[in-house]
Amino acid sequence: MTAPRPIRVQGKPLGDGAIPIIITPLVGATRTAVLDEVAAITPKRPDLLEWRIDFFAGIGDTALVLETARAIRAACGGIPLLLTRRNATEGGQPVPIDEPAVVALYTEACRARCVELIDYELSNAPEDLRRLRAVSADNGIAMIMSYHDFQLTPGAATLDRKFIDAERLGADVAKVAVMPRDPQDVLALLAATWRASQSIGIPLISMSMGAIGSLSRLVGWAYGSAATFAAGQGRSAPGQIAIDELRAALAALRRALPAA
Amino acid sequence: MTAPRPIRVQGKPLGDGAIPIIITPLVGATRTAVLDEVAAITPKRPDLLEWRIDFFAGIGDTALVLETARAIRAACGGIPLLLTRRNATEGGQPVPIDEPAVVALYTEACRARCVELIDYELSNAPEDLRRLRAVSADNGIAMIMSYHDFQLTPGAATLDRKFIDAERLGADVAKVAVMPRDPQDVLALLAATWRASQSIGIPLISMSMGAIGSLSRLVGWAYGSAATFAAGQGRSAPGQIAIDELRAALAALRRALPAA
Repeated sequence: MTAPRPIRVQGKPLGDGAIPIIITPLVGATRTAVLDEVAAITPKRPDLLEWRIDFFAGIGDTALVLETARAIRAACGGIPLLLTRRNATEGGQPVPIDEPAVVALYTEACRARCVELIDYELSNAPEDLRRLRAVSADNGIAMIMSYHDFQLTPGAATLDRKFIDAERLGADVAKVAVMPRDPQDVLALLAATWRASQSIGIPLISMSMGAIGSLSRLVGWAYGSAATFAAGQGRSAPGQIAIDELRAALAALRRALPAA
Repeated sequence: MTAPRPIRVQGKPLGDGAIPIIITPLVGATRTAVLDEVAAITPKRPDLLEWRIDFFAGIGDTALVLETARAIRAACGGIPLLLTRRNATEGGQPVPIDEPAVVALYTEACRARCVELIDYELSNAPEDLRRLRAVSADNGIAMIMSYHDFQLTPGAATLDRKFIDAERLGADVAKVAVMPRDPQDVLALLAATWRASQSIGIPLISMSMGAIGSLSRLVGWAYGSAATFAAGQGRSAPGQIAIDELRAALAALRRALPAA
């Protein structure tokens, strides 16, 4: 198997060199709940923590978000932090602030350099994508541009386009997460990931969600996905596997498969 | 994941209920070498032993073949035995006997009931397939009809056709093994297996061979393949994984994936 391009933060590949890296979400509603999650998850050594601030009740309080991000970093033993407000239109939680306030919040987080990466959906306004790309780059923060469909797996042309769009818009990482209706849709997502890995130059993250799609969380790396999401204390999407089981299965797969 | 249809011998599903079952080949050239393999492999408890008589120097001696089959059964602790002369045109070893002698040998093995299953290629003469189907059925022996391409993965229509042909010709099990040229070919084989699992009524065995295809030996069951081949003392096709590693990886996958 050919190793996928790794995700980098300030030039350095994330994780300890093993691909895929494992990302676990933080989905607490309060500072205390999030820090409890960090305390529970950190010993399991994920390679990246994704703080899903759409789950955070204090999302409207910029100072609280920045302070909580710093508290997460102080508690997580050096695991890099990804800041994500997942849009409710793409499977996230509804939030009490409007899009300009979301962009302003991301902007402040970038300027404060209290996270290593941000994720923003490709479906957002081009001007907002450009603005966040610029401020993240200016502050050495990596930017994931993402696409999610929690209802279905779109056709091959749409999947291909999402990866291409992310690269075209200057993303450091392209992410595509879609829902399968049958096992063939899982293969379609893996095939699109493979095509993207051959045709674009940035690292990729992809997965097929739900129970049917779970297999993609274990084998996506063989088709070009550099990361896989594991459940920590909570799940942020259907089909996420508990981190210990995910890591054990990935290790067993690696032992069984021939070296690249 | 939906469990594939199990392979049955005299009505009883093979293995201990876990899918996929694990098949290991016996590739020794002499009676002694084959029995040494049996002694080494039996403690690892494969679900089925495939005796590849195209590797057996004594293939032209019917009495020796039948006696060796009985000796394998006496030594293997009740693991069912599959008899296979893999045609040299489909990745097997050249043999010193002609096709009528091969058909006669299979016929004698069926009549002697010294094996539980036979495998014969779909590419053989229809009359020979019919004859072996009849004599195997008459003696309660299951018949696999198989297709192999060690050079490439044919298109979807050809793959679909091979599964359909096996059912149409009365096989108990349809087997398709093909070589990928890139990771997309592995997905094509899995997709064809899935389509067959939805459209035909007999159990299936499929795999994508070689290093690139190895992943299919671990995940094919999620797409409808009831069995996977592991290396025992020897490999009979490229990409076969050692039985202990294969079993460990399958167990880890099952633990990680949601129940059906």
